[in-house]
Amino acid sequence: MHPFSDQPAETVAAWGEQKLLAHIRRWLGSAMPAAPHGMGDDCAVLPAPSRRRAPAKALVTVDPVIYGEHFDDAVAPRAVGQKLLSRNLSDIAAMGGRPTAAVLALALDPRTRLDWLEAFYRGLAAAARRHATPLVGGDVATHRGGLVASLTLLGETTARRAVTRSAARVGDFIAVTGVLGGSLASGHHWKFAPRLAEGAWLAGRPGIGAMMDLSDGLAKDLHALVPAGAKPLLFGELIPRRRGCDLRAALTDGEDYELLFTVRGAPAARRLAAAWAEAFPRTPMTVIGKLVPADAPAGGALDLSAYHGFEHFR
Amino acid sequence: MHPFSDQPAETVAAWGEQKLLAHIRRWLGSAMPAAPHGMGDDCAVLPAPSRRRAPAKALVTVDPVIYGEHFDDAVAPRAVGQKLLSRNLSDIAAMGGRPTAAVLALALDPRTRLDWLEAFYRGLAAAARRHATPLVGGDVATHRGGLVASLTLLGETTARRAVTRSAARVGDFIAVTGVLGGSLASGHHWKFAPRLAEGAWLAGRPGIGAMMDLSDGLAKDLHALVPAGAKPLLFGELIPRRRGCDLRAALTDGEDYELLFTVRGAPAARRLAAAWAEAFPRTPMTVIGKLVPADAPAGGALDLSAYHGFEHFR
Repeated sequence: MHPFSDQPAETVAAWGEQKLLAHIRRWLGSAMPAAPHGMGDDCAVLPAPSRRRAPAKALVTVDPVIYGEHFDDAVAPRAVGQKLLSRNLSDIAAMGGRPTAAVLALALDPRTRLDWLEAFYRGLAAAARRHATPLVGGDVATHRGGLVASLTLLGETTARRAVTRSAARVGDFIAVTGVLGGSLASGHHWKFAPRLAEGAWLAGRPGIGAMMDLSDGLAKDLHALVPAGAKPLLFGELIPRRRGCDLRAALTDGEDYELLFTVRGAPAARRLAAAWAEAFPRTPMTVIGKLVPADAPAGGALDLSAYHGFEHFR
Repeated sequence: MHPFSDQPAETVAAWGEQKLLAHIRRWLGSAMPAAPHGMGDDCAVLPAPSRRRAPAKALVTVDPVIYGEHFDDAVAPRAVGQKLLSRNLSDIAAMGGRPTAAVLALALDPRTRLDWLEAFYRGLAAAARRHATPLVGGDVATHRGGLVASLTLLGETTARRAVTRSAARVGDFIAVTGVLGGSLASGHHWKFAPRLAEGAWLAGRPGIGAMMDLSDGLAKDLHALVPAGAKPLLFGELIPRRRGCDLRAALTDGEDYELLFTVRGAPAARRLAAAWAEAFPRTPMTVIGKLVPADAPAGGALDLSAYHGFEHFR
């Protein structure tokens, strides 16, 4: 659906701010708590954190969806709202966290269709309820000619530590969840389930080094996990591919929203594989390579410099 | 400065993503902590909350600045960055809070000038340092044809409670900080100091009912503080005006970023006025009216229905 209309009666301009906010409240339904824990005050007051034995660390991330960049007229607005939350949830998953609350900043053309907006909010609310993530506030502002929705997601760690990108070491094995490639062509990027359960499970395992989610393609994203003095040895034939995808697609297509992580040593990797198969029997988890010293011989490994992931602003 | 350029060498397109992110890190300097507490991981890990006797409540708010709506070519990009933080700080002030961390979502045209962007980030960083608000993360995305910067600000209450908009009662006096009107004409909205100290001080006083910040003009914003069954009796000649502003300007210009709050009973209001003069000798605080039952006679009070504040999407 095209998000804008030249029929004023169908657009947000027909309603103005107060009526629009009242409807947003209705569209969000139970996904939005009552003020001051939801919309309606200068700030949202967050619910008190749950008391645990190990104090959780607070997490925050932000990602947008933008008309003309992340979606176009061919996309159902419901899917846009759902993906906006899911791509942020994937970041929380990659730290081994759970979501706690979200706020939405919406910048939109006064010609934005009311039915587009309703479906967008309903999609967002459905995803928020599915992941127990209250939408606690937001802002709606005029942006002639554009439609930009930025969601900030708050979360907390499920283990004592956050699993960062920087904790990998030479000798760690490199592993990935799911299958890679073809996310855009297959529609995976509209309907993927963020790896929250898997990320939290991994964060509580011994021997997990670093972790991140794959958004711009393995060939590009992997560099963020490689510490100084190391290089990755990947074996192309091990990389799990979506049906119909070749190696290049698996390395460079992007928007996989799978977890990439490292495991310390062969015994830990073996134990992990066994425990994973029991915990997540329907989700593949594959060791695809190893971090070796930067001056080690390549030994038939993949030359990643021949592959490029998604590059912004080009 | 116009934010876009048709000379590719002057724009973000010349750098691409990695080089741009490296420079953003440099521009932010000490306003951005090291990863994982700043940019560079899937999420930012927030610093542990300070331990206090009275546990603080967490606050969150979000507000954007948008090219063509909130600023144009006549505005210095440094002022845009500073205002983006200040208008969010004003929301934290209105709950009696202090800021703890901020994340920025930037959606920008590949033709965005690098010097525009540097000045914007440096303005934002200077304001962040001034208010001890670390910029802990963000996102930069392509948005052909537009420039939208949304900042999400996290905070915590300074008192045991958050001062909400909903705690006013019939009989409360209505008071306001500073002077109103002419914010756009005078440039006040680019350089105002958010009322953080004043908001925190008020939150700790007995007898303070409800509080909010003034952004769309007193005539519009005040309605949010008026409980069911009440109406506001305002006396026009009491409303503090910026030099050169008439009553209409003070009621409807908007972007005052002053605090509007209620005080319970005449003795509390008198004590408050005396204590305020001592605590903030250079900032006016004025009682401008009272909340009365909805069916009380108007008695010469201002007819607010003749005044309208800023209306979005019109």
